[in-house]
Amino acid sequence: MRQAIGHRTWAIAEGYIPSHSHGPEPAMTSHETACLLNTAEEDAHVKITIFFSDREPVGPYFVVVPARRTMHLRFNDLRNPAPIPRDTDYASVIESDIPIVVQHTRLDSRQAANALLSTVAYPES
Amino acid sequence: MRQAIGHRTWAIAEGYIPSHSHGPEPAMTSHETACLLNTAEEDAHVKITIFFSDREPVGPYFVVVPARRTMHLRFNDLRNPAPIPRDTDYASVIESDIPIVVQHTRLDSRQAANALLSTVAYPES
Amino acid sequence: MRQAIGHRTWAIAEGYIPSHSHGPEPAMTSHETACLLNTAEEDAHVKITIFFSDREPVGPYFVVVPARRTMHLRFNDLRNPAPIPRDTDYASVIESDIPIVVQHTRLDSRQAANALLSTVAYPES
Amino acid sequence: MRQAIGHRTWAIAEGYIPSHSHGPEPAMTSHETACLLNTAEEDAHVKITIFFSDREPVGPYFVVVPARRTMHLRFNDLRNPAPIPRDTDYASVIESDIPIVVQHTRLDSRQAANALLSTVAYPES
Repeated sequence: MRQAIGHRTWAIAEGYIPSHSHGPEPAMTSHETACLLNTAEEDAHVKITIFFSDREPVGPYFVVVPARRTMHLRFNDLRNPAPIPRDTDYASVIESDIPIVVQHTRLDSRQAANALLSTVAYPES
Repeated sequence: MRQAIGHRTWAIAEGYIPSHSHGPEPAMTSHETACLLNTAEEDAHVKITIFFSDREPVGPYFVVVPARRTMHLRFNDLRNPAPIPRDTDYASVIESDIPIVVQHTRLDSRQAANALLSTVAYPES
Repeated sequence: MRQAIGHRTWAIAEGYIPSHSHGPEPAMTSHETACLLNTAEEDAHVKITIFFSDREPVGPYFVVVPARRTMHLRFNDLRNPAPIPRDTDYASVIESDIPIVVQHTRLDSRQAANALLSTVAYPES
Repeated sequence: MRQAIGHRTWAIAEGYIPSHSHGPEPAMTSHETACLLNTAEEDAHVKITIFFSDREPVGPYFVVVPARRTMHLRFNDLRNPAPIPRDTDYASVIESDIPIVVQHTRLDSRQAANALLSTVAYPES
């Protein structure tokens, strides 16, 4: 039986969803993604809090990453308690009841040629 | 004699192989790569497990990184027990019998202008 | 009450602000950003020192990241004690009186198609 | 007096210098860079070893990063004991006599639109 890999608390200081996109939807829609990996034999209950530069944090957003699964969560799709505004700087804290691994990716298709960035998120130890 | 640098367990939460490419093959084929570095004086026996969002994990895939060598392993090339489906979210766990270093890179050539991302993978301590 | 996440000292060894840009300002201006996240219930007092390849370090630059806020600080905007020269290699050290999280991003629009890079900064432990 | 920040041993598992470039030289020449930051009050004596997939490691290459300076070292420029071959997978280990910070960047201008990647290197603890 595989052990849970990772940490319970992660932070992504970068966040920005462009309002404009080029190319076929949804693959080429500008998006920010938190890739969540749960290697454990039990579900991970995850809550996400969004921080802004000029207003109080919003959240938590709740998602479940099932046992032995990955979830590539688009911040674009978060709805409850509120969608994330476009063209706005934000950051996020991701907390799970069991260890998970978090990687941050953005596809930016504001221009005809898309750009990509990715980094493992910051794990709080 | 150089000591082995790195960790025995690594995770890459991001994974996605686009099915479309532009430009000359194979250099410009859209691909995901795990760059593995073995600085030790003995071979590293590595097994890779692939996680998905909607089905059970697949693997292990076995590779050997010889002593004092690097291997830039394209996930596109994994065949046994099964090729990795295109246009599908996945994640990976990489386990070695001796410490290695793992870095993750994607070249995305779905559009005429390619995009690159890279990050050191998450080392489990 | 949420605890402060992160470290007090961070380093970004990469730094380069291109003097040329394509696309609408300011979103598409070539820029280097340090994304700072303060999850604590008190303000973070941050000082930034800039290192060069051929002259003495410049700084500190002072910024305040309010409690429960993120600040996506463009190095382009630093003025006091001196603006950061364009087309020049630099690096930075970021020190805070309470733990914060730092991520480094560059949007490079020297060419018509912009490029992006991002990585969590190096946390000194 | 500022303390040295960082680690003495770093690894970059990714390495690849494309032989083709677009755009004005040298800024837009395809290149791989190791950004080295020495925050200490004394010089850092650094040696770099290059690993390949199919031959013995080459090195060490020696560089000095002066006190309170950054050096953005292009692997393209390494000459002694041998230049790094183009279009060839490699990896690197960077060792310093005092702690430094290392970040890895590639500008890929094989196509008209350049692509960028960057990540903090792997610090051996």
